Amino acid sequence: MNKDSVGTVDTQYLHFAEPPHELVLESGKALGPVTLGYETYGRLNRERSNGILVCHALSGDAHAAGFHTGEDSPGWWDNMIGPGKAFDTERFFVICSNVIAGCKGSTGPSSINPRTGKPYALDFPMVTVGDMVKAQARLIDFLGIENLLCVVGGSMGGMQVLQWAASYPERVRAAIPIATALKHSPQQIAFNEVIRQSIMVDPAWRMGGYYDQGQPRNGLAIARMIGHITFMSDQSMEQKFSRRLRNGNYGFKFATDFEVEGYLRYRGDSFVKRFDANSYLYITKAIDYFDLSDGRLIPEGKRTSTRFLVISFQSDWLYPSYQSQEIVRQLKKRQVEATYCELRSAYGHDAFLVDVEEQTMLIRHFLESTYSGNGGRYEGDLRWKSGRTTG
Amino acid sequence: MNKDSVGTVDTQYLHFAEPPHELVLESGKALGPVTLGYETYGRLNRERSNGILVCHALSGDAHAAGFHTGEDSPGWWDNMIGPGKAFDTERFFVICSNVIAGCKGSTGPSSINPRTGKPYALDFPMVTVGDMVKAQARLIDFLGIENLLCVVGGSMGGMQVLQWAASYPERVRAAIPIATALKHSPQQIAFNEVIRQSIMVDPAWRMGGYYDQGQPRNGLAIARMIGHITFMSDQSMEQKFSRRLRNGNYGFKFATDFEVEGYLRYRGDSFVKRFDANSYLYITKAIDYFDLSDGRLIPEGKRTSTRFLVISFQSDWLYPSYQSQEIVRQLKKRQVEATYCELRSAYGHDAFLVDVEEQTMLIRHFLESTYSGNGGRYEGDLRWKSGRTTG
Repeated sequence: MNKDSVGTVDTQYLHFAEPPHELVLESGKALGPVTLGYETYGRLNRERSNGILVCHALSGDAHAAGFHTGEDSPGWWDNMIGPGKAFDTERFFVICSNVIAGCKGSTGPSSINPRTGKPYALDFPMVTVGDMVKAQARLIDFLGIENLLCVVGGSMGGMQVLQWAASYPERVRAAIPIATALKHSPQQIAFNEVIRQSIMVDPAWRMGGYYDQGQPRNGLAIARMIGHITFMSDQSMEQKFSRRLRNGNYGFKFATDFEVEGYLRYRGDSFVKRFDANSYLYITKAIDYFDLSDGRLIPEGKRTSTRFLVISFQSDWLYPSYQSQEIVRQLKKRQVEATYCELRSAYGHDAFLVDVEEQTMLIRHFLESTYSGNGGRYEGDLRWKSGRTTG
Repeated sequence: MNKDSVGTVDTQYLHFAEPPHELVLESGKALGPVTLGYETYGRLNRERSNGILVCHALSGDAHAAGFHTGEDSPGWWDNMIGPGKAFDTERFFVICSNVIAGCKGSTGPSSINPRTGKPYALDFPMVTVGDMVKAQARLIDFLGIENLLCVVGGSMGGMQVLQWAASYPERVRAAIPIATALKHSPQQIAFNEVIRQSIMVDPAWRMGGYYDQGQPRNGLAIARMIGHITFMSDQSMEQKFSRRLRNGNYGFKFATDFEVEGYLRYRGDSFVKRFDANSYLYITKAIDYFDLSDGRLIPEGKRTSTRFLVISFQSDWLYPSYQSQEIVRQLKKRQVEATYCELRSAYGHDAFLVDVEEQTMLIRHFLESTYSGNGGRYEGDLRWKSGRTTG
């Protein structure tokens, strides 16, 4: 184990909304009991002021850093979380939880419906990003944290960050939405719709009721192949595969000719082993519904002391920079403190997961200035003390 | 019928490679007999010098202009072909033929295999863009045309243009490749591979042998939905659909919420009625194999008198402008006369079909200067007469 690793970790579970209570969702439907899978790294300080919530992307999970016993691969953002890293676990208490509707420890369509004793499948209620965050807030309550130092995440994780800032502005000192958007464009909805359709037309999907017979593997693999194309950039695919052939020449049949084809098939197949098809449907729908544009991020007349660091990547064509710039524009309209950085990277949307050097520098400095009191809520106190008010 | 329409037209059929002859393909396999579906508009002049070959894109056909009896929609490039249009049928003799491996009158996987009396299905040999053009050349021979004034086409049509210039440089006075590439990038291959996989995992595909039972409609619809996303731009989708809902609010289920979803499903379903799934497989493979990079367009030491007008569109992210610029770079390396224009259009890859005003001006002038003798082969004659040689 390297010195900069958080070491061996376990996923923990919080149960809430036990009968007769339920979590009331945005659709008006109710969900309960609810379990959230989560992990924490580092220690909460006495003032409970060093908590950082990390929000995961579409197919992510609570396992953001360190190693599960017996596994060789670390958590999905291990390059960002650990001693001395961007989210320094020597100083900060880092929390990551699996979203509801997921399939990695939190209640979702593959969970047992207590009313039937069988998996929910399509009886699972539709959830929104707002519902995901509402459930997360219960976890933060449980951990005894009133105010989070920071909420951070990329892609769908970034939507949760924005939702936290909108739903609980007084609980978030700093927000770092990365490679994300206030709302999906029709192109993003279109990709998600094809992803959903490819799952739903697979006869093995059985209207969502496949749990006895196994996943709709063909449809789910196609769905993930589509996703993977959108996560990479033209440039990174060129660097990684170019037109290299697997067997040196054209096969003149429909088997795999090009390395990029083999890669996609591999990624599609391996996804089937680790992710529930119905969760993919629910979560893509949640992010299509997400919309904090038109003043919904910070309503007119409201003030917030949350500071923002908004990050996008030049080669990300799935969540293009103009969408991050739109976030910044909304924040500036409300006179919110916001820094925007578009980072150079060839890795497309995947950049937030793999291209961490510049991200680390930016985030480390931003966290430092928030934590040490040069920004956000603490700056608010100073303003109050000196009697000055500034935009 | 408008004055600028070529009026009522019929698809005609040329049969060749009749036994014992066969068309020998690039793979080494042979195909025969071969039928080509084609249409012509305008009249061939006495000198046989006004012939223009229009090459269609992936799912196109020979019906480029005018109306088939009883149909309301004109051919796919009717806005470009007709009296007074870019390809003025008062002056030029315009030819368009359906590619082999297609399903619109030319021999393809849905054609009857004379050896079995049943559709070829996957016994159809793999064809390349080179093979498509080789078959087209037989049609041009049949029509009695030695030299084409121009070969033009967008997307896969543009690949055929480049292939004509490579295979028969002495037969092409002017070439207009539009929104195309010397070779597919791994991203383009990746999209095609997901398209193929979505067809091939549909149980109704039956290893290609579905002709008795009907199309693999689910897989083919998914394939076309993916295609449609890549044909449009983020911007044109925003203009056309934005986030408009079909029923005014979120349905909180997996039915169609957004207009863009309904549009994609409609386009997917209607494609099933008009295009053969196996043809889609063969043709996408042909364009993935296509590669005239690395000096294969015009080999080192060879000269060509073909003039080029290369056109791309700013918002086309499927065939981005850098690919057209690469064509121009290759041509300039060989001291070939080439003009390049990147046109402003919000329509993405579809622009070559719909955004015709600027295209028309460019092409009209380019054709005029070629036809009237200010360029290409005729300029070669002038050079010979005056004894000058110019690069």
